[in-house]
Amino acid sequence: MHSDHPAVTVLGLGSMGSALAAVLLERGHETTVWNRSPHRAVPLTDRGARLAATPGEAVAASPLTIACVLDYEALHAVLGPVAGSLAGRALVNLTSGSPEQARETAAWARSHSADYLDGAIMTTPPGVGSPERMFLYSGPRDVLEAHRPTLAALGDPLHLGADPGLASLYDTALLGLMWSTMTGWLHGTALVGAEGTPAAAFTPVAVRWLTAVAGFMTTYAPQVDAGRYPGDDATVNVQIAAIGHLVHAAAARGVDNALPELLKSAMERARDAGHGSDSYASLIEVLRHPAEER
Amino acid sequence: MHSDHPAVTVLGLGSMGSALAAVLLERGHETTVWNRSPHRAVPLTDRGARLAATPGEAVAASPLTIACVLDYEALHAVLGPVAGSLAGRALVNLTSGSPEQARETAAWARSHSADYLDGAIMTTPPGVGSPERMFLYSGPRDVLEAHRPTLAALGDPLHLGADPGLASLYDTALLGLMWSTMTGWLHGTALVGAEGTPAAAFTPVAVRWLTAVAGFMTTYAPQVDAGRYPGDDATVNVQIAAIGHLVHAAAARGVDNALPELLKSAMERARDAGHGSDSYASLIEVLRHPAEER
Repeated sequence: MHSDHPAVTVLGLGSMGSALAAVLLERGHETTVWNRSPHRAVPLTDRGARLAATPGEAVAASPLTIACVLDYEALHAVLGPVAGSLAGRALVNLTSGSPEQARETAAWARSHSADYLDGAIMTTPPGVGSPERMFLYSGPRDVLEAHRPTLAALGDPLHLGADPGLASLYDTALLGLMWSTMTGWLHGTALVGAEGTPAAAFTPVAVRWLTAVAGFMTTYAPQVDAGRYPGDDATVNVQIAAIGHLVHAAAARGVDNALPELLKSAMERARDAGHGSDSYASLIEVLRHPAEER
Repeated sequence: MHSDHPAVTVLGLGSMGSALAAVLLERGHETTVWNRSPHRAVPLTDRGARLAATPGEAVAASPLTIACVLDYEALHAVLGPVAGSLAGRALVNLTSGSPEQARETAAWARSHSADYLDGAIMTTPPGVGSPERMFLYSGPRDVLEAHRPTLAALGDPLHLGADPGLASLYDTALLGLMWSTMTGWLHGTALVGAEGTPAAAFTPVAVRWLTAVAGFMTTYAPQVDAGRYPGDDATVNVQIAAIGHLVHAAAARGVDNALPELLKSAMERARDAGHGSDSYASLIEVLRHPAEER
């Protein structure tokens, strides 16, 4: 039924939507695009994309529509009036939002007899098309499988589960990990920078160290699931002593200490909750509940 | 002059010192050990280590002494009385401490005609001996080169520079990165866990995502050194909007929000300092100075 390169529609041509459409075109998909401001389509129509005059025409052009617009409000403004055209087709929604919005939109799509997947793009626009970058999807697995050849052109498609809210929930959790990691890296860079070490010297060591940290995470994940945190390698008490050196070193160099102080206080909460001899993974016990509720 | 497996002395047989001595023995080095409580040496003497009766005898047994004791106070208590035996030999100090302590100890070693390297072990005891794990060294490069075959048995030796304080400074900065990353991961794990996703499902995705984050760090390091932060890929303003979703999602699930709130406030400080359209790397400008000084 399908060719190797089925037709596909892309709604929304911001920098991410444009990157999606460009990669699909490049891989030989017949690509229809629509954007509220049609001038954003010019670089794509120059390369062979078809520009639809309306969202309804865009959706009707392909068995699969990929939406990547500003937010869910914009999504419903664009698709609400043409919901009927979605019947018997698939909508893959890569718009950022909350798990609740994803679930509501999945129910709305189902009510119009459309297949629906919610997704999250774990890369910046220049990374689209790389098989190493993750695209997270949640919703019915068979919808992903039906459109895998097209979706795999964009990046490595991972199916997280049937609950359509999962992609958004993972996205949010992974961005939190990114901000924590990047801020920790910038804090360390500021610390060594205070003694004249350039970021270009520190960063390769930091990147390599992250692979060791990833190993600790992999070791600790089963502890979290078991709710038991044997402190064989390094205990919370040992980490509390060590973070004292960081706080002191940062203070001595005039570097902001808010992040180390917060981490230290999370460790102390874990110790006070009886996890002093447990591994660092035991901090999840205190992170699961706001500090105010103690 | 040296054999391929020169004699080496290890002072301090805590879990890390014992791991160092065990690997050196395993690789065929004539290994002399000393510990304040000699019973800790039994597993090593069983495998062929020589137990020295005193620190002075231990130092005199080898051209290279590796010290890994509780802290610098313990180091000086052990080596102070036998400093004379260090003359013409090398001391590699893997005891944790501050850059200031490392520099003072380097000067003390020089004053006793000893070669000196300060070092930091970027792994847990079970990782000792793996060529993938980093051992950071600072001090004269020729001292590292003279003892490279022995030190390379323990892990990959990286020379950071002639200033003996650098290994400790990097160590502290890298531990800060570790705590930030692990706490971000645990926070994300708590968030997805609130909807029933096990840590064992989330963690492989988080580990893979960290390789993308490491790519962002590599992209941003030259921006830090240049002091210019073009926000081509994602601006601070975009990240502030996105972290609002995280704060909301965590609050809705009863997950502690102290870490996301702190990260958001660092982003807002960067925006208020004029970096709203710059990349995330611009946060280093606010991290370089305590928030109170604004």
